[in-house]
Amino acid sequence: MEANLDDQTGEALGYVMQLLLDAGALDVYFTPIQMKKNRPATKLSVLIQPAAREQFVQLLLQHTSTIGVRYQTWQRTIMQRHFEQVMTTYGSVQIKVVTYGEIVKRTPEYADCARLAQQQQVPLMTVYQAALQQVK
Amino acid sequence: MEANLDDQTGEALGYVMQLLLDAGALDVYFTPIQMKKNRPATKLSVLIQPAAREQFVQLLLQHTSTIGVRYQTWQRTIMQRHFEQVMTTYGSVQIKVVTYGEIVKRTPEYADCARLAQQQQVPLMTVYQAALQQVK
Amino acid sequence: MEANLDDQTGEALGYVMQLLLDAGALDVYFTPIQMKKNRPATKLSVLIQPAAREQFVQLLLQHTSTIGVRYQTWQRTIMQRHFEQVMTTYGSVQIKVVTYGEIVKRTPEYADCARLAQQQQVPLMTVYQAALQQVK
Amino acid sequence: MEANLDDQTGEALGYVMQLLLDAGALDVYFTPIQMKKNRPATKLSVLIQPAAREQFVQLLLQHTSTIGVRYQTWQRTIMQRHFEQVMTTYGSVQIKVVTYGEIVKRTPEYADCARLAQQQQVPLMTVYQAALQQVK
Amino acid sequence: MEANLDDQTGEALGYVMQLLLDAGALDVYFTPIQMKKNRPATKLSVLIQPAAREQFVQLLLQHTSTIGVRYQTWQRTIMQRHFEQVMTTYGSVQIKVVTYGEIVKRTPEYADCARLAQQQQVPLMTVYQAALQQVK
Amino acid sequence: MEANLDDQTGEALGYVMQLLLDAGALDVYFTPIQMKKNRPATKLSVLIQPAAREQFVQLLLQHTSTIGVRYQTWQRTIMQRHFEQVMTTYGSVQIKVVTYGEIVKRTPEYADCARLAQQQQVPLMTVYQAALQQVK
Ligand code: NI
Ligand code: NI
Ligand code: NI
Ligand code: NI
Ligand code: NI
Ligand code: NI
Ligand code: NI
Ligand code: NI
Ligand code: NI
Ligand code: NI
Ligand code: NI
Ligand code: NI
Repeated sequence: MEANLDDQTGEALGYVMQLLLDAGALDVYFTPIQMKKNRPATKLSVLIQPAAREQFVQLLLQHTSTIGVRYQTWQRTIMQRHFEQVMTTYGSVQIKVVTYGEIVKRTPEYADCARLAQQQQVPLMTVYQAALQQVK
Repeated sequence: MEANLDDQTGEALGYVMQLLLDAGALDVYFTPIQMKKNRPATKLSVLIQPAAREQFVQLLLQHTSTIGVRYQTWQRTIMQRHFEQVMTTYGSVQIKVVTYGEIVKRTPEYADCARLAQQQQVPLMTVYQAALQQVK
Repeated sequence: MEANLDDQTGEALGYVMQLLLDAGALDVYFTPIQMKKNRPATKLSVLIQPAAREQFVQLLLQHTSTIGVRYQTWQRTIMQRHFEQVMTTYGSVQIKVVTYGEIVKRTPEYADCARLAQQQQVPLMTVYQAALQQVK
Repeated sequence: MEANLDDQTGEALGYVMQLLLDAGALDVYFTPIQMKKNRPATKLSVLIQPAAREQFVQLLLQHTSTIGVRYQTWQRTIMQRHFEQVMTTYGSVQIKVVTYGEIVKRTPEYADCARLAQQQQVPLMTVYQAALQQVK
Repeated sequence: MEANLDDQTGEALGYVMQLLLDAGALDVYFTPIQMKKNRPATKLSVLIQPAAREQFVQLLLQHTSTIGVRYQTWQRTIMQRHFEQVMTTYGSVQIKVVTYGEIVKRTPEYADCARLAQQQQVPLMTVYQAALQQVK
Repeated sequence: MEANLDDQTGEALGYVMQLLLDAGALDVYFTPIQMKKNRPATKLSVLIQPAAREQFVQLLLQHTSTIGVRYQTWQRTIMQRHFEQVMTTYGSVQIKVVTYGEIVKRTPEYADCARLAQQQQVPLMTVYQAALQQVK
């Protein structure tokens, strides 16, 4: 779901991003674009489940300056995921384990690392690397 | 309708935007992209009615450097619109009123505000705010 | 001279670009930036002669939403330029000749090519290439 | 103060923006750039008072992946500001009044409008326009 | 085929672009986007033949940090192309001739011009313009 | 050192980036900008030692379409660096160790990881994480 916005401020767009995420959007992102009459503008993209479309059409028409919304159905391939736990000097961190057939990827959860980094007053990367070193 | 352009200058792309708008495109916009071999490039996007597709394929192939054009059909939800008139210290301004079910949005027309701002030698925002204050 | 703008619309920024060019700015350009609180924003850059600074500070404070402007002096190396004339099937085109020491560059003037392309209903590139073929 | 970052994730950069704002930076913003070897990257810009420079050099070297920081002194012209209060149907909103010589600009405070919009379950623009209508 | 990436570095993305091109992608490009939590991010887009989809889904899941890939089928109109040869002072350059109905475009091949420019120690534009002057 | 380019193609700019890096520039990067007359354009930035300025002014004037170059002196704080070696299942990887006062950061060298990833046919991230796990 997309809309091109040349008559809404950045301040207002930051507000809308949060509102759409709170309403359950799978993903919300902005792309810088250039529209007619020398206007720097922003494309708002919202990824949602097809069943939620009318709800989000309403939200976009109500909370942005756009007079229209366009949408399309994409297919998706999503990896399976579960979480494991590792212990570091800074505390416990969840490891996100995602799999698709033979493919396996393990990454420390950002939110855990960020929380510990703030509590322990160390750089985020320090916690992230410490967590990664505990991954087998 | 889209094309990625890495072998056309910005000067020439500004020309093409105007040409496509003059030919009746609903919207034309540029997105900065990054292509292979360290090339900064531009994605040209054109929104048109499905019936105009062959006409615009021809225009893009003729007036841009691309050797191919890709296209897709999007669905759209568009608000109803009509115009009202308000009077300000600076002159008369049209208010665009757009509606969709219960949703109603009123915004001063950019073109009117811009014209008055230039005639009266005041900032655009001054006229815009004055118009907004007359909206009930 | 620069200002970061997160509380002005693209529509209004397009208006400001034209206003600053009309006021004699050497160059005006926009850069897409990302500010705090998830705000997509625009950096407005204006290149001017040092003597015009106070005039442009006033214009920016008056016509944009910013509460402050920052500025710096850059040094510049500029090539010498003069114009030559070539005749093509589509009409006469000026060639901009720029030089710096041993370096010489010749390019057909965009404005001439654009005018002829519209008059003769041919692509801009056709006129541009025709002009280039007449350059010795 | 600037650094080009091609070896830090977006997740980590979002964390750093907040950290720098919490440390008292006047402004922090990101610009999308394109570096060698086909790398999409981000330029981090931090505006600070000259006296805070060594503190922020340390923060950037510690919390980002960069191995160097570059900096420059800009001059700035800043408008005077004070706040006024207006009452709307949705509650009380502060109006930021900024002045420079003859120039006066009044804008409703984003934070107030956002808070009321959430409390009253109305669009941000509705509160913003209501506040603007109370500005004399 | 697209994926939004906020947890992979620019360095790693440059590597992935080359890997996807080597695997036979028709085109690969990056778009700067802005994701939640103040994250500057990159959208990776890959254009491929429909038959290659599962192969590229695997490559993206294996070589990027994404946990999901989305895809769609676009229609395309592609011009016919063949090559002609012209001789310049700097050496022989291929001219790409592309046609679609009445439309014909001729452009000097970038790779040839680049090779000659390096061999002869002249600017790329000099070779490019010389080749263009030989095009009838 | 900077130049705004609206009359050079992306193809030609990719060529120039490599040429400037080969000539010894410390860093070269592109920023997408928007210039007058609806032109999407590119700002070319080159970081060099002050002593190399005239050489690079010449290179930019000769190899880009610009008619002028602007430049400024920045101050920089650069971390000390040396390299250590770690052994992984995939081969030997250099670890870049950078220091500034108390601050120490260790990161696996991209080039080593990329080379091993290609030789061993494993994802870059696999080698990178393996190297990181050997860092003490
Ligand atoms: Ni509008
Ligand atoms: Ni498990
Ligand atoms: Ni090409
Ligand atoms: Ni009405
Ligand atoms: Ni604000
Ligand atoms: Ni002459
Ligand atoms: Ni690196
Ligand atoms: Ni007052
Ligand atoms: Ni994540
Ligand atoms: Ni032929
Ligand atoms: Ni020009
Ligand atoms: Ni050591």
